[in-house]
Amino acid sequence: MQWYFVAALLTLLTSSQGILTTLSQSNGGYKYDYATIPFLAEIFKLLVSSFYLWKDSRSSSPPRMTKEWKSMRLFPIPSIIYLVHNNVQFATLTYVDPSTYQIMGNLKIVTTGILFRLFLRRKLSNLQWMAIVLLAVGTTTSQVKGCGEKSCDSLFSAPIQGYMLGILSACFSALAGVYTEYLMKKNNDSLFWQNVQLYTFGAIFNMAWLILGDFKAGFERGPWWQRLFDGYTVTTWLVVFNLGSTGLLVSWLMKYADNIVKVYSTSMAMLLTMVLSIFLFNLRPTIQLFLGIIICMISLHMYFAPPHLLMDLPVTSKPPPSSLTDASMRRAVNS
Amino acid sequence: MQWYFVAALLTLLTSSQGILTTLSQSNGGYKYDYATIPFLAEIFKLLVSSFYLWKDSRSSSPPRMTKEWKSMRLFPIPSIIYLVHNNVQFATLTYVDPSTYQIMGNLKIVTTGILFRLFLRRKLSNLQWMAIVLLAVGTTTSQVKGCGEKSCDSLFSAPIQGYMLGILSACFSALAGVYTEYLMKKNNDSLFWQNVQLYTFGAIFNMAWLILGDFKAGFERGPWWQRLFDGYTVTTWLVVFNLGSTGLLVSWLMKYADNIVKVYSTSMAMLLTMVLSIFLFNLRPTIQLFLGIIICMISLHMYFAPPHLLMDLPVTSKPPPSSLTDASMRRAVNS
Repeated sequence: MQWYFVAALLTLLTSSQGILTTLSQSNGGYKYDYATIPFLAEIFKLLVSSFYLWKDSRSSSPPRMTKEWKSMRLFPIPSIIYLVHNNVQFATLTYVDPSTYQIMGNLKIVTTGILFRLFLRRKLSNLQWMAIVLLAVGTTTSQVKGCGEKSCDSLFSAPIQGYMLGILSACFSALAGVYTEYLMKKNNDSLFWQNVQLYTFGAIFNMAWLILGDFKAGFERGPWWQRLFDGYTVTTWLVVFNLGSTGLLVSWLMKYADNIVKVYSTSMAMLLTMVLSIFLFNLRPTIQLFLGIIICMISLHMYFAPPHLLMDLPVTSKPPPSSLTDASMRRAVNS
Repeated sequence: MQWYFVAALLTLLTSSQGILTTLSQSNGGYKYDYATIPFLAEIFKLLVSSFYLWKDSRSSSPPRMTKEWKSMRLFPIPSIIYLVHNNVQFATLTYVDPSTYQIMGNLKIVTTGILFRLFLRRKLSNLQWMAIVLLAVGTTTSQVKGCGEKSCDSLFSAPIQGYMLGILSACFSALAGVYTEYLMKKNNDSLFWQNVQLYTFGAIFNMAWLILGDFKAGFERGPWWQRLFDGYTVTTWLVVFNLGSTGLLVSWLMKYADNIVKVYSTSMAMLLTMVLSIFLFNLRPTIQLFLGIIICMISLHMYFAPPHLLMDLPVTSKPPPSSLTDASMRRAVNS
């Protein structure tokens, strides 16, 4: 399978995730417990990966599986990073409003690039760095609140702690991705075996989260397993399967492509969601969205296009500064 | 003289032009006739160029001057194009509001690139085309009206004729620049001699414009030469000298650099004006301006940086899609 096919599929599914989640609401709220969604998605991913692992283990070439504790003990770490990230995110939101938080969220594109360079030691060209900054700028541009919109006074007037925490949050978000890529690529183990380990811990952490919620609420609504499917509709199940499928695609990309590909997929998905929302929910298109899309498309091309396509030129077309006068004279004679 | 020094100076002077013009107003209006400014600027440029031409003609190597009518008759053409452009601009503004017109004005960056390619036959790399589009997107982003600003309802809701005329206006604006570049580079004539021809016709056309204004007003305020300096202050004279100087710099760039350099200079000047206005007129900085500046800086770097600086990499750093699996395995072994 080609990585760009998987990336395009991830874009489509991530984009439908936003739409499906909105459609699963009734009267602007959730009739089901939203915290159950990621738990069930982990279970779904675990079941799918286990099935394929079992299938592969019966084939002529059994899957490579490292079963040492030294290797397995690394798999809960992404879950732990996500847990820390959730808490930092919660703390950030006590200082900044949600729209400022959303704008700051684009920083994770840049922090992913930095951690990708530092921890995975992957070199990027200057052009690729500029492309990454442009991607963050493009997604931010598309989110700028337009003229006539309400609730904008507080944008960028939060206390400094809010911004510090926002940057920290972007770092943890990037760290989770980069660490997962490290895990998936550190040996030649079967993707399904790596997934089984990852999602087992993911399911455990999500279950712990549900139990914690029960304790916080004093078991007023009963234990989580008794109300697991309460208020579930077909759309809710679609949200679960969709979230699970995007998770499986991300896993695949972490092993066979990289974090930057994932960041492009999810950024493009955000723009696609905004475009689809205009049609589905009858919103007014903004010039910001239009500009953001152009910026992100150029960024995509800058990052992934092969150099010879970007610079398909004889050197004389861009005259060096020192000989500019001569060059323009030469051109003048030709024209 | 290096072209980037002239370009930087043009940016500074163009940027002060906006500030000076605002400072020359009293109570939000002009106490002097604004139409006299470009006329006096043409006279200033004509005097400066004539002086240098006279000085050069007394030197050991006299300036090259083509005095055939066949060559001289081309010099009123830029003035004629500007005249047509002004009328198209006027017609556009009957359909669209000024802020939409300002946004559409950024199209001239792209039309300049296109006419530069078509008429001057100058090849641009894909990366340079992307840079030009980004420059237009960046300047537009900086101008997007933010949350809480008034008078935004009409943005992009004008009749289709308005947009057609806006595009036509951007084409004429680009044509004037590209034609001037063609004129300046078509032979090795002295820059000052070319300027004298250009500004003589410029002064004549501006004078005709003033006379036309007098006829339209029925000579109520008397002929233009009687009220030429009415209401002029020191700042007004600075506006004149500043406009004249930017004109001379543009001329130089047209001969020794090109239209794209000029477009970058004036776009950067627009951003600089917005930044300076924040400090001088105590305006609130917007995130749009911040994003626009980043986009334009990246565009500048993309267009002018030498390719080896942008792509300073061994080819293996960007794995080709088909061998991605192998590449990631190889990396996994190394990490």
